[in-house]
Amino acid sequence: MAQYGLIEAGGTKFVAGIADEEGTIFARHRIPTTTPEETLGATIGWFRQQGLKPEAIGIASFGPLDLNRASPTWGHVTRTPKPHWSGADLTGPFARAFGCRVGLETDVNGAALAEARWGAGKSAGSLLYLTIGTGVGGGFVSEGRLLHGLSHPEMGHIRMPRHPLDLDFAGHCPFHGDCLEGLACGPAIIARWGVSLSELPEGHPGSDIIAWYLAQAAVTFQAIMDPARIVMGGGVTATPGLLDKIRTMAAQSGAGYFVGNPAEVIVAPALGDNSGLLGALAVALGI
Amino acid sequence: MAQYGLIEAGGTKFVAGIADEEGTIFARHRIPTTTPEETLGATIGWFRQQGLKPEAIGIASFGPLDLNRASPTWGHVTRTPKPHWSGADLTGPFARAFGCRVGLETDVNGAALAEARWGAGKSAGSLLYLTIGTGVGGGFVSEGRLLHGLSHPEMGHIRMPRHPLDLDFAGHCPFHGDCLEGLACGPAIIARWGVSLSELPEGHPGSDIIAWYLAQAAVTFQAIMDPARIVMGGGVTATPGLLDKIRTMAAQSGAGYFVGNPAEVIVAPALGDNSGLLGALAVALGI
Repeated sequence: MAQYGLIEAGGTKFVAGIADEEGTIFARHRIPTTTPEETLGATIGWFRQQGLKPEAIGIASFGPLDLNRASPTWGHVTRTPKPHWSGADLTGPFARAFGCRVGLETDVNGAALAEARWGAGKSAGSLLYLTIGTGVGGGFVSEGRLLHGLSHPEMGHIRMPRHPLDLDFAGHCPFHGDCLEGLACGPAIIARWGVSLSELPEGHPGSDIIAWYLAQAAVTFQAIMDPARIVMGGGVTATPGLLDKIRTMAAQSGAGYFVGNPAEVIVAPALGDNSGLLGALAVALGI
Repeated sequence: MAQYGLIEAGGTKFVAGIADEEGTIFARHRIPTTTPEETLGATIGWFRQQGLKPEAIGIASFGPLDLNRASPTWGHVTRTPKPHWSGADLTGPFARAFGCRVGLETDVNGAALAEARWGAGKSAGSLLYLTIGTGVGGGFVSEGRLLHGLSHPEMGHIRMPRHPLDLDFAGHCPFHGDCLEGLACGPAIIARWGVSLSELPEGHPGSDIIAWYLAQAAVTFQAIMDPARIVMGGGVTATPGLLDKIRTMAAQSGAGYFVGNPAEVIVAPALGDNSGLLGALAVALGI
């Protein structure tokens, strides 16, 4: 059976893995993210040690990335505040070391592909994957194909209405102030109330306010894509009871206008800790 | 050269046409929208009179439509307040009369396909078409393919921030109040100020307020799809000077974060009166 090399490239660690095309992961290995030379070199070293003869290699990576296939710097990190990584070539070293095709996507788009193929969106036709944590990101897959315009989505930066009890907060996004990320990401919650949602005292309006923002975002995504599934992952949405609130509020705001019913559409991720590596696998299979 | 039968199906009139695959329209004919029997019958009659032997027939229609190919009522109008047209079969009569494939899309998706193929988005890769008039609608095309989830987009119903000088208006949408359509469509303008934007006295803030809403919407669409072109058509955006205001305000709100520069991305439609029939042709060619 064909083998695939997988890389989940994160800002603090890389996870390398080996799998078959059905999603069985045979081996995985964690490598700290230091410099491109060290980290990519250690990843190649581990693949070799495992005797990998890959059909293809897939990378699901932190960004920003140049994903324009016509660009001379396709497959590279673009400008990032992360030391050493601006301009780093993520794909070339693997293509040279293993002589195979190498695919690259954002980590969020990778997770969207994986949830659509093996997880919460299996057989559903279309899936929007959102992660709400340190930041907010999203990817949309329809019939196995990722939504792309000039660049990968930056769904955290959609414009938002304001909750009537939250008019004084300027928002946490350095670029846009009160976009979705600026209002609902983990640091925006800490900036307002000093603790995470699950640490707020009972009766505090914080959970309702954040659930309301995520419900408004769900309505906007229904209006634009009407996804069969909206997966909400990340630390913020793991707060107990939050998904149920979001479902109820999205149904109220949508007023039955869209085909998808939020009670069925809005779901938790299904792939857990495997979503990064399976994202890389989906990227490798889709080259 | 192959011939295609085209139908632009509107609430007050149908326009039938005949064209080749390059977009040359040889003949067109206008038919009032009365009952499905009369209007579809007259359309078939005109096609026959013209001696049409179509390779395929494309319909770009008012809605709501059942566009789910797996549904037994694919190609029918669903529930509409328009008398006689709920449940009307738009495609079957043409398939039976001409023994050819018949394609159907919403009028907005048709215009999006046509602008992407022959108009403002030619060679651009991706295009969002918005029409802002009696209502607000939108369609997105990437590499010739329409964005579809569970249903066609209802982009007029995205959630919106509120302009600080427009906090008292409840919004005009019967379902969502202050969604994009509820704030920026023609009737929402009349409801606030009694006249259309171009009839407002000089110095009135109305144009700036509406331009700001359309700029916020453009930013949201850039965050989600980053379209190479955002075409803004319809009566409201035809107001002199409005597109320039929208471009400036979208650039301010986006803060340079997205790949597309609003000054180049936001454009007027290029196909004028032909966009309906060319939309039907794009549908026929895409079956």
